[in-house]
Amino acid sequence: MAEHTHPPLFLTNTLTRKKEEFIPLAPPHVGLYVCGPTVYSDVHLGNVRTFLSFDTLFRWLTYLGYKVRYVRNITDVGHLVGDVDEGEDKIAKRARLEQLEPMEVVQKYTNGFHDVMRTFNILPPSIEPTATAHLIEQIAMVERIIAKGFAYEANGSVYFDVPAYAQHHAYGELSGRRIDELVANTRDTEGQDEKRSPLDFALWKRADKNHLMHWPSPWGEGFPGWHLECSVMSTKYLGRTFDIHGGGMDLKFPHHECEIAQSVAADGEAPVRYWVHGNMLTVNGRKMAKSEGNGFTPEELITGDHKLLDRGYSPMTVRFFMLQSHYASTLDFSNEALQAAERGLQKLMAAWDTLERLKPAPPAGEAYDVAALEKACVAAMNDDINTPVMIAALFDGVRAINSANDGRAAFSADDLARLRTLFQAMVFDVLGLKREAEKQGDDLSHGLMNVVLGLRADAKAKKDFAASDLIRDRLAALGITVKDGKEGTTWERN
Amino acid sequence: MAEHTHPPLFLTNTLTRKKEEFIPLAPPHVGLYVCGPTVYSDVHLGNVRTFLSFDTLFRWLTYLGYKVRYVRNITDVGHLVGDVDEGEDKIAKRARLEQLEPMEVVQKYTNGFHDVMRTFNILPPSIEPTATAHLIEQIAMVERIIAKGFAYEANGSVYFDVPAYAQHHAYGELSGRRIDELVANTRDTEGQDEKRSPLDFALWKRADKNHLMHWPSPWGEGFPGWHLECSVMSTKYLGRTFDIHGGGMDLKFPHHECEIAQSVAADGEAPVRYWVHGNMLTVNGRKMAKSEGNGFTPEELITGDHKLLDRGYSPMTVRFFMLQSHYASTLDFSNEALQAAERGLQKLMAAWDTLERLKPAPPAGEAYDVAALEKACVAAMNDDINTPVMIAALFDGVRAINSANDGRAAFSADDLARLRTLFQAMVFDVLGLKREAEKQGDDLSHGLMNVVLGLRADAKAKKDFAASDLIRDRLAALGITVKDGKEGTTWERN
Repeated sequence: MAEHTHPPLFLTNTLTRKKEEFIPLAPPHVGLYVCGPTVYSDVHLGNVRTFLSFDTLFRWLTYLGYKVRYVRNITDVGHLVGDVDEGEDKIAKRARLEQLEPMEVVQKYTNGFHDVMRTFNILPPSIEPTATAHLIEQIAMVERIIAKGFAYEANGSVYFDVPAYAQHHAYGELSGRRIDELVANTRDTEGQDEKRSPLDFALWKRADKNHLMHWPSPWGEGFPGWHLECSVMSTKYLGRTFDIHGGGMDLKFPHHECEIAQSVAADGEAPVRYWVHGNMLTVNGRKMAKSEGNGFTPEELITGDHKLLDRGYSPMTVRFFMLQSHYASTLDFSNEALQAAERGLQKLMAAWDTLERLKPAPPAGEAYDVAALEKACVAAMNDDINTPVMIAALFDGVRAINSANDGRAAFSADDLARLRTLFQAMVFDVLGLKREAEKQGDDLSHGLMNVVLGLRADAKAKKDFAASDLIRDRLAALGITVKDGKEGTTWERN
Repeated sequence: MAEHTHPPLFLTNTLTRKKEEFIPLAPPHVGLYVCGPTVYSDVHLGNVRTFLSFDTLFRWLTYLGYKVRYVRNITDVGHLVGDVDEGEDKIAKRARLEQLEPMEVVQKYTNGFHDVMRTFNILPPSIEPTATAHLIEQIAMVERIIAKGFAYEANGSVYFDVPAYAQHHAYGELSGRRIDELVANTRDTEGQDEKRSPLDFALWKRADKNHLMHWPSPWGEGFPGWHLECSVMSTKYLGRTFDIHGGGMDLKFPHHECEIAQSVAADGEAPVRYWVHGNMLTVNGRKMAKSEGNGFTPEELITGDHKLLDRGYSPMTVRFFMLQSHYASTLDFSNEALQAAERGLQKLMAAWDTLERLKPAPPAGEAYDVAALEKACVAAMNDDINTPVMIAALFDGVRAINSANDGRAAFSADDLARLRTLFQAMVFDVLGLKREAEKQGDDLSHGLMNVVLGLRADAKAKKDFAASDLIRDRLAALGITVKDGKEGTTWERN
């Protein structure tokens, strides 16, 4: 993509707090890194939203013609309980609870994570590296940071020297924190006597006797600090400076701030040009959290098996619901909003079916402006991946499609072809929606329903109402409601 | 499982060439290691059979009550073209061809491999370790072997000293090869000047300038030899000596022979108690090979898109077909055999449906001996996982079920419950079969077919043959054939 065939893409860069034009370092290639899950428990819904947001960015960059190398890691060691430098490794703790070897825990929850990603039609990344597969590179990075004077060894652990770094570089620039405020807000916690400053963070931790996962290093047996792996894996696969780094906004500090510091300290280069952060979930207006009892899992959302849910919602309903908010806005879950999304999705899918059936005809009045619709969709996505605005534009198209179906408007053959191409691209490729068999039946069910509704129409035509009522009752027993409306006979499965 | 509740399991141990009683080292735990794929291309059908065979062993051990830790690795570095010590790394070669970073190749084909495993309902292992995630342990093992005097460094590479090892240990014991014959059969190949003996094999290879994947080591930048990773990963997760090691029989020599030598040399202990090897595939009686043009992929087998295939076969047909041969026998693919398997599977699934519907009744004559059937199934599986004999026993049960359905026999309530439990366990849990929606429609389709067939029966009862013919024609248009037989009305989708 030497030249843009579309107007330029703008992204909100957390680093500059501005919406900036996205200019890749080496077009048509784009490097995208997203912090993946720590695989010590089932993935939570906030993670799903984050990965869905960056899936949409990945899909959009691909639509624009970029060749994207998308790296999303799996954290399988080093992430300690409480996200701090002390405490148990999250995976080792779970291994103890489930009486499994840590790598069995990793496998179990990695499989579960992949299942959830597939359920929501979130595409796999180009590379999915793990922390344990990059220990040599992590140790080498620690050695480089020590050599530059920005880290020190203490009792078999190695800490990043934040005050030393801050003398030369802008620690806190991403999250907007000031060193003096950070110091003022620090409480003493266990084991911090090894640290010269409470702001320092671990690059390598000495493994005590009970630690299940440890490797040899120049500083003895130990394991890497949590922040280190992302610095190593992003730059290994995308280069010392790469285009886009994404993640949930809870990772801005300390995780991403530490990533910047590590790269600058080790190699003298800022690692990332565009930092992009997704926002959080709320439920009925309150922050979603396990401790609040309002943190339902992706599975509970689908089955409806949670006290806050009236019923279950299909994966594509959830996907569509999430895409109706901008990635950088908080997203509030409520039954009303989910049900509205479900109706919206059905309307969109019905319009796609209609669009496939529509025949071209000479427009009676002014022709619908398909080019303007396409422009509106692209403009919305190029404006910081504004999916809600793009969806609103699509619904303008839906109204036009339904008008044509009613005979109140018509499309030329060219416009029809262009509209189909646009809907195919935006609905399926970019928004990543797909038809759901559970709700709408498979192709065979659709065929059989057509047979049954045909027999019912025959009976009605013959005024054999006993027969048509019988059919209605038998369908009702299968949970199918048939409605006769002005747009023809439709059916719905309860 | 302190005591066996079932008669003992016997496995053919390649090491002793005998069928031996399986006695785990630390019951109820069982350690099982199987060599997984090298992820540089789509998985081939021979691999699928191997992983299916060990999936069945895993399922059977689980059925017997063992807690199985099943480790199946992913080879993502070190496997050279030609399976020898010279030549290009298979993954790096593919990366060059596809213009991808090697880890993108790994990710692409790992995803594809997982998709194929899921298609054939092959369960994920407990741990799926990768070679690149165990470099530190591999380097440490090389150091232990050097320290024991069984390996030497040459020009940045490290080779295993087979003659030195063979003076003290039985090199060749697994594959039944003799050192003098191996020497006689060795041809000089490029680069072997570094080796003291042509039998020596690489533990670590120096990376030349063009090598894409390399890591620092005590011998300079390089990468591990192919045989090393399995020695490291099996013993790391299962212990220095563990219960069962499986793989295709093409891996017996040199791969598995080298694994034994590496473990014995490094740690003085034989790594494996039971070596189990699966056999190869043939097509119409000839060895399946890409070079022969008769090596179809799993996908081609399903779609039927290959010159040797009359049509496609469903994944469960293929699974059932493979299970109808013993894992240690060659398995010959032919359209006739696949179609016979398809009919057999349909018969088995139809019998399961019938079994679910059957009502208990007092047997007219002698009651069917469900206990004897259960015993026969268990005995077959305990006799070296003899799935064809177990399936034959199940078909004895199928005949009894069909007799009961015809009213020629009957089951008591207890027998019916026991038979259902047995079929559930053997068909679904142990053989790992499942109902296939593509062929048989989903639940909604089944319900709708019942509505349509009910309307057809009503029409026939009223002698409204115009209506019943219309229904038949409309179903035919959907590819559905209805048959009225003595066992009632059945339908089939073409």
